[in-house]
Amino acid sequence: MTRPRALAFDTFGTVVDWRSSLIREFEAFGQRHGLNQDWPTLADDWRKGYLPAMDRVRRGELPWTKLDDLHRMILDDLLRGAGITSVGDEDVDQLNKAWHRLDPWPDSVDGLLRLKQQFVITTLSNGNMSLLTNMAKRAGLPWDCVISAELFRHYKPDREAYIGCAELLDVPPNALMLVAAHPGDLRAARDAGLMTAYVTRPLEYGPHQRPHRVDDGEFDVAATDFLDLADHLSA
Amino acid sequence: MTRPRALAFDTFGTVVDWRSSLIREFEAFGQRHGLNQDWPTLADDWRKGYLPAMDRVRRGELPWTKLDDLHRMILDDLLRGAGITSVGDEDVDQLNKAWHRLDPWPDSVDGLLRLKQQFVITTLSNGNMSLLTNMAKRAGLPWDCVISAELFRHYKPDREAYIGCAELLDVPPNALMLVAAHPGDLRAARDAGLMTAYVTRPLEYGPHQRPHRVDDGEFDVAATDFLDLADHLSA
Repeated sequence: MTRPRALAFDTFGTVVDWRSSLIREFEAFGQRHGLNQDWPTLADDWRKGYLPAMDRVRRGELPWTKLDDLHRMILDDLLRGAGITSVGDEDVDQLNKAWHRLDPWPDSVDGLLRLKQQFVITTLSNGNMSLLTNMAKRAGLPWDCVISAELFRHYKPDREAYIGCAELLDVPPNALMLVAAHPGDLRAARDAGLMTAYVTRPLEYGPHQRPHRVDDGEFDVAATDFLDLADHLSA
Repeated sequence: MTRPRALAFDTFGTVVDWRSSLIREFEAFGQRHGLNQDWPTLADDWRKGYLPAMDRVRRGELPWTKLDDLHRMILDDLLRGAGITSVGDEDVDQLNKAWHRLDPWPDSVDGLLRLKQQFVITTLSNGNMSLLTNMAKRAGLPWDCVISAELFRHYKPDREAYIGCAELLDVPPNALMLVAAHPGDLRAARDAGLMTAYVTRPLEYGPHQRPHRVDDGEFDVAATDFLDLADHLSA
């Protein structure tokens, strides 16, 4: 394996634990407004709404819409479905920004600090720029820069996002490695000519998650977390 | 004065001392290739070539061209003019990347670290993304994110760059403050609705620089360096 010059990180699920963080945010929201709901299910449903909403943008059924606004559309439907209609617009917006306040996995910050010593490290996420910037600031994620699908107006797994990231970093696609916990994202990156590192995040979808199906050797590196990834890449 | 939510920094001259750094890079280049020239004048001429080159892009005479490529066009002319024709393409490219290796002013890193505690801090520079990212990594500039004219395909002082920066950060233009050592940049930002902070950099153009002409109260803040700016904004 040749050595990458830069690492681009998928974010939701790969760097941050969206599920626990959203449950925490929903519970605080429930307390503020005296509401009692099955918050873990609402958190899962919020995330589940993301793919179809994004695909509507990718297919051109919706004009370019940044992720904060897609999240808000999904959240409005969920709250309506749960009979929560008395909460003001600003409070719903505050809840919608929960995605700006996701907590990193325990190894994320230390692993990124190690990897940053050897590589340019950036996000390559479908989250919009302000979401990723606010998340990094709160969580202490030490990115060298923040790159988002918003800059290309193409959500991953559109090829434009992977190629666009390499162009902005001024590295050939085959010197850029995507790091992700999701095989689909990695396969699209590989098809665009990038190197790939698969990191398992067995708790992303909660305690009962089934492992992703990945063939042996399908990706350039397979790691159990970011510290393990740093070990692999410094070997 | 209301309080800004985010600060966007002009970079060349405001955050980094391009002149001393280019002279250092030219001298090392001269040593490597056994060349003796008036390096300070070449450094000044390189910088002088920047405005007219950028203006050709802004007027549409050149298609969008990122700053690394404009710098290279100017450098090729300068080297030819100085009779330096024997240096290989890769070595010239290495010299061209001197702009990725500019040193910060002595107060820049400490000042940014202080300001980062209270505000989102980003670049808003005509330098391309890879230039700004490499510069930040080498110099330890602690940006929350890196924003470049390259993202808008509009060089400052085009209005699109200022407005585009506010949009990516998801703040209204009047909650974004441009920090710059150049009145022209600040006036264009103000015309686009941004707040403005003028920081004097009396050595930017070398020891014989004449002060810029600025009217009293023309900008929201006037500061002598980034530590002074942090004092003003925390008062």
